[in-house]
Amino acid sequence: MKSPLFGIKVMDFSHVMAGPFCTHTLHQLGAEIIKIEAPGKGDVMRHYDPREAFKAMAPPFIAVNTGKRSIAINLKHEKGIDIVKRLIADADVLVENFRPGVMQRLGLGYDDCKVLNDKLVYCSVSGFGQSGPLRDNPAYDHIVQAFSGVMSLTGEPGSPATKVGFPVLDTFAGYTAATAILAAILQRERFGEGQYIDIAMLDASLNLMISMVAPYLIAGDVPQKVGNRGFNNSPTSDTFPSADGEVSIGANTQVQFEALCRAIGREDMLENPLYASHEERLQNRQALRADIEANTRQKSAEEWEAIFNAVGVPSAAIRSIPEVAGLEHLQTRGLFRAQENTSGESKVTLGPGFNLKAMQHESVGPAPRLGEHSNEILLALNYSQQEIDALRAEGVVQ
Amino acid sequence: MKSPLFGIKVMDFSHVMAGPFCTHTLHQLGAEIIKIEAPGKGDVMRHYDPREAFKAMAPPFIAVNTGKRSIAINLKHEKGIDIVKRLIADADVLVENFRPGVMQRLGLGYDDCKVLNDKLVYCSVSGFGQSGPLRDNPAYDHIVQAFSGVMSLTGEPGSPATKVGFPVLDTFAGYTAATAILAAILQRERFGEGQYIDIAMLDASLNLMISMVAPYLIAGDVPQKVGNRGFNNSPTSDTFPSADGEVSIGANTQVQFEALCRAIGREDMLENPLYASHEERLQNRQALRADIEANTRQKSAEEWEAIFNAVGVPSAAIRSIPEVAGLEHLQTRGLFRAQENTSGESKVTLGPGFNLKAMQHESVGPAPRLGEHSNEILLALNYSQQEIDALRAEGVVQ
Repeated sequence: MKSPLFGIKVMDFSHVMAGPFCTHTLHQLGAEIIKIEAPGKGDVMRHYDPREAFKAMAPPFIAVNTGKRSIAINLKHEKGIDIVKRLIADADVLVENFRPGVMQRLGLGYDDCKVLNDKLVYCSVSGFGQSGPLRDNPAYDHIVQAFSGVMSLTGEPGSPATKVGFPVLDTFAGYTAATAILAAILQRERFGEGQYIDIAMLDASLNLMISMVAPYLIAGDVPQKVGNRGFNNSPTSDTFPSADGEVSIGANTQVQFEALCRAIGREDMLENPLYASHEERLQNRQALRADIEANTRQKSAEEWEAIFNAVGVPSAAIRSIPEVAGLEHLQTRGLFRAQENTSGESKVTLGPGFNLKAMQHESVGPAPRLGEHSNEILLALNYSQQEIDALRAEGVVQ
Repeated sequence: MKSPLFGIKVMDFSHVMAGPFCTHTLHQLGAEIIKIEAPGKGDVMRHYDPREAFKAMAPPFIAVNTGKRSIAINLKHEKGIDIVKRLIADADVLVENFRPGVMQRLGLGYDDCKVLNDKLVYCSVSGFGQSGPLRDNPAYDHIVQAFSGVMSLTGEPGSPATKVGFPVLDTFAGYTAATAILAAILQRERFGEGQYIDIAMLDASLNLMISMVAPYLIAGDVPQKVGNRGFNNSPTSDTFPSADGEVSIGANTQVQFEALCRAIGREDMLENPLYASHEERLQNRQALRADIEANTRQKSAEEWEAIFNAVGVPSAAIRSIPEVAGLEHLQTRGLFRAQENTSGESKVTLGPGFNLKAMQHESVGPAPRLGEHSNEILLALNYSQQEIDALRAEGVVQ
């Protein structure tokens, strides 16, 4: 069976992270992505690495731009706008993540594009959305983490607010945009119309925190920092010291608590009235923690992980990215993909986070050099080579 | 235009968080969700709140189950399996998040269901996936945060691993499942076939961390904890103390750095050779931080937020969930939805994190009581009331 987005053409005006991750996800589902970049520097994320080997091709740029095609066009030039309008007329999807209002000033707002192509699904991604008093606030991932409450929830009780250590909201907002675009394509397929989609990092962040935000709205429950404890707040769902690092344990139920006591060789704790029920364990959490710690320090985190999991108590050693990425499990799951770089060298990169059995697992193409596909894209639009050379001489394309 | 998933029927065998958040997302796009629960207690998340007012209806349960219908069926009873097979024969989508192998043992694995309905999109959500050596590992959100590297990235350099303070991986895995299901429905709509989807929290977590994981795979770059600093590692993209709490600042570029200096009344810093370029500022980050802090302490976080944003330096005061949820901005964005509870009382809950302009903004229905719709669902399957009463007497349904 063909890929879900086979034959779907996406015009990608986005840069850095949320927008490119959105179109990366669409590409993983089979869509063709044309990346529109400014001549000269192109996407600023190309330049996030000072090393010569990654010049204009920083690894975080490669990560989310594999297999896309790049055309470098000057959007401040009328002829540049003419070219992208011809591309938009033939596209299924448009994605942009400029500050609100920029596309309108370029003559490329939704209303302008709808005239060219009324089937178009047009998606804007921004920090705070296209409407509301905060729409003009500039945003980076860590700014929205501060603004949205994400930082206020992370860390030990009483500790300063803590950022999630990777750009979780850029990524999640981009994923939300991809999801909304899929829904809109399906809606168009079933019911015939294109539409406009407004994605805000702030809105997406609240949805990601739904288990905290909705209970606050529904019941007035103000979420608190809980350190490393699990969601259901059991004192035996937390991290504990081991002989060589910390191990995370998830003993939520009475059955799991009992299995935990046996696994650490402390059947005596089953008789301790202070630990008889979830409520008692909550009240005596410090004594309980001390009792468990004294035992978990005796073996390594990976040993405990195996011991606990074998008796039905979810557990994990705390791993670094290299430790996780090296696991055979992920190899057998097919989570990595062969990836050619522009010099033809074969590398490995990350495959999608979903596994649709009716999709092929393919290797992924290289991330494009700036303007690498300008010529072929313009030829396909029926510009002659002479016209293209003239446009290049005028600085309209690169 | 009708909703993207108008008329789509989802059989939801899932519980707690990742699966229910998946079907919640599908419901927000117009799908009809039939929640299959065990008689007696039902979804264990119903019972996550000890307060009488939320008996069997804990706020985190309500959060992700609004508008679904519940049928309570004993799947250990042959007649219970007969009922769900009749439901599956007429469904578009099936979602389950049992441990791998449970659905097969019930006679409800993908191969069993495909025989009943070859158009079915069948999605399994688990901690570590349906294949690979770790497939049987049990999982909770905080366990996968430990295992996947998420915890290793969060916090100040040298500090212990820190959990993201909300169930980010449960939520993101569920969202990934919803995205994959949308893609599979679109694929079926365009090319005719159903399929099996395997979603693992671990796989999804690596995709969420793509800006860390892919550069490691591509260039061997081992990600480090960076505390509250932004992704591009500028010393002026970080949190700083204010008169009343911390403020996050995002001055990445030279232009933003200069605007920052002027905004804090320190034009003199523009002349300081120690701060002349990004590289210099990195080398002298401690002195730079001290210089900035001395000034940011003079006004409140919200004052600085306004001052910085006005000059193009992204900034945000660190807000709590109640502070964010109270903002007029989100009201005007339509992010909240009126929600009826089962006693007809009107409350507010969270709307979707996306805004498709061609979809209606509707109020959301109540979360179902356990088995609230058993009778009507069975009547629609052409069971007579007498047969239903007999099934109830036998303990097959509740």
